[in-house]
Amino acid sequence: MNFDFKKECRGVISVIGASEIDKTTENLTIELGRLLAKNNYAVSCGGLSGVMEAICKGAKEEGGLTIGIIPYKEKNAANQYVDIVIPVPFSQARNIVVVLSGDITVAIAGKAGTLSEISFAWIYGKPIVALTSVEGWSSKIAGQKIDDRRNDMIHGAETPQEVVDKVIELMNAEKPKSFSFSEL
Amino acid sequence: MNFDFKKECRGVISVIGASEIDKTTENLTIELGRLLAKNNYAVSCGGLSGVMEAICKGAKEEGGLTIGIIPYKEKNAANQYVDIVIPVPFSQARNIVVVLSGDITVAIAGKAGTLSEISFAWIYGKPIVALTSVEGWSSKIAGQKIDDRRNDMIHGAETPQEVVDKVIELMNAEKPKSFSFSEL
Amino acid sequence: MNFDFKKECRGVISVIGASEIDKTTENLTIELGRLLAKNNYAVSCGGLSGVMEAICKGAKEEGGLTIGIIPYKEKNAANQYVDIVIPVPFSQARNIVVVLSGDITVAIAGKAGTLSEISFAWIYGKPIVALTSVEGWSSKIAGQKIDDRRNDMIHGAETPQEVVDKVIELMNAEKPKSFSFSEL
Amino acid sequence: MNFDFKKECRGVISVIGASEIDKTTENLTIELGRLLAKNNYAVSCGGLSGVMEAICKGAKEEGGLTIGIIPYKEKNAANQYVDIVIPVPFSQARNIVVVLSGDITVAIAGKAGTLSEISFAWIYGKPIVALTSVEGWSSKIAGQKIDDRRNDMIHGAETPQEVVDKVIELMNAEKPKSFSFSEL
Repeated sequence: MNFDFKKECRGVISVIGASEIDKTTENLTIELGRLLAKNNYAVSCGGLSGVMEAICKGAKEEGGLTIGIIPYKEKNAANQYVDIVIPVPFSQARNIVVVLSGDITVAIAGKAGTLSEISFAWIYGKPIVALTSVEGWSSKIAGQKIDDRRNDMIHGAETPQEVVDKVIELMNAEKPKSFSFSEL
Repeated sequence: MNFDFKKECRGVISVIGASEIDKTTENLTIELGRLLAKNNYAVSCGGLSGVMEAICKGAKEEGGLTIGIIPYKEKNAANQYVDIVIPVPFSQARNIVVVLSGDITVAIAGKAGTLSEISFAWIYGKPIVALTSVEGWSSKIAGQKIDDRRNDMIHGAETPQEVVDKVIELMNAEKPKSFSFSEL
Repeated sequence: MNFDFKKECRGVISVIGASEIDKTTENLTIELGRLLAKNNYAVSCGGLSGVMEAICKGAKEEGGLTIGIIPYKEKNAANQYVDIVIPVPFSQARNIVVVLSGDITVAIAGKAGTLSEISFAWIYGKPIVALTSVEGWSSKIAGQKIDDRRNDMIHGAETPQEVVDKVIELMNAEKPKSFSFSEL
Repeated sequence: MNFDFKKECRGVISVIGASEIDKTTENLTIELGRLLAKNNYAVSCGGLSGVMEAICKGAKEEGGLTIGIIPYKEKNAANQYVDIVIPVPFSQARNIVVVLSGDITVAIAGKAGTLSEISFAWIYGKPIVALTSVEGWSSKIAGQKIDDRRNDMIHGAETPQEVVDKVIELMNAEKPKSFSFSEL
């Protein structure tokens, strides 16, 4: 092998969102995957269907690296676009690992599982970017704070390009704090 | 020993909420703990401070049984009112166990950690009652749905007595469904 | 309710072992459950079949308190003799919680799952008693050390009464140390 | 980016072992890391010191890809030779993820933590290769079975080259079975 990860990869972006999505959301997510790979970011996700599959598909179209953190013990349960499969067969606790494996969290649409991941991203001090042009928790929570303990907010972005611009900006900014249990 | 748990205990109620609370919230939570014990419900919680300590304190005043699911490996990290200490040293993943150990989830105030627990209660099909007379996520989310996959909503209740009345009603009602990963 | 747990219960004993057992092992385990309850110890276990069911059955025959830490999300997956069900749907990671919920670990027979629990009991500084009169890891590993970092060893005991005598002795002795990751 | 993981990488090997090692063990492990990378295998490990650091160091010397599954929430806790950091802040439960992320498990020396990982590799149906030329659990358990439910055994190998030869052979062989809870 001959891959200098630290030289080629500027960071890992956790992408979270619904496992069932419409064509519009799918296309936006594939486009985001392409842009992240072009800008030399690896993507990490839950490794299954919907947003998780679309982001990996887009990333692979541009030669990107994809990490799928699946809630099952068998590696072959991941979608076909995942390069590195990490089985975390701990039910919803796998969501925590999805968030922690990235430097920044990007939310696209999403139901209750996505809301738990947004909560964790907030707790663990990850900057959060939320796509506002689709339905679900990403547009509902954009521009808000989860609680009063961080100075920043969940950043809204309307297009895949705006998401990537925000990601680049946030990668260079000071990181929010991570909370301990006594603060929760 | 001589304790017939199944005969004496009508169910276990998971109580979630902030680890730092004001005097008003503390008193309301202690009152709820008393009422739950009087009505023969055991309480389960995160075992630390704030809402977790107040609910156990109230329950013990009426001879109740308290379960504390703490995020540390040492049992002595639990507050003094916890009877049965369950160490789950898995960071925020312990929140999942708090929710699953109860038949119903009751939310009191709360920040990001509480929001993750509400999300899990929704995913795992637990009926949810949220206290509306205090600040934080419990009052913010009362009367709402986390997503469109359950027919019920998060039930608001204004006083400890109303919470208990709702708990008794929900214990006798049909349970909401629990979701699999392909639905999330 | 009216149960003073801390007054009535002298400690919690984690009992680990095979999920499929022969009649002899079952009878020995039921007898141990009875003796632990008579001596005012609660029992904690994996909540399923085999050793886990027999220990709870014995404990309940003498009015004891039983805790079942199951690897599934639904509380009704526990065996009928479990009082307090703690769902930890994290695959084999639930074994860690079984060990941590007790003050002492008792091993009866056992295959690979039991060996992982014995390893964890060693790491987390729990005294370990292993029944020597049955086949499996409990008799194989009795009298040995898992590694050189603890001064004690895995204590062998030939009968349920000897197990209880050892448990009582160890409850009053100084506890072994628990290890951090840098020592593992 | 431009990395075709599935084309370049023939599999992922989980390497487990002690966090404190002597110079001989370190050199053997570095040599194994080199050989695995040369043969186009990625390595996965616990991401900290000792065997975990040496295997990554060796792999990077030959342009390999390294995955570090650390038990802390902060990515910067991994050793400097880890490319892809996966934080699993779930205490010893992170050991499960180390084993599941690989196709085959290789054990080098090791104390109680390593024994728990060998137990999990057995339970989850991973072929196991154990280095016999160093002290600790890898040499103690080589040639044995953890229990009677698998037809194979833990394969001993005396040198890094023998480990790699065995890995290549096992990658092409039929996989052992994985166990469900009712069988444990």
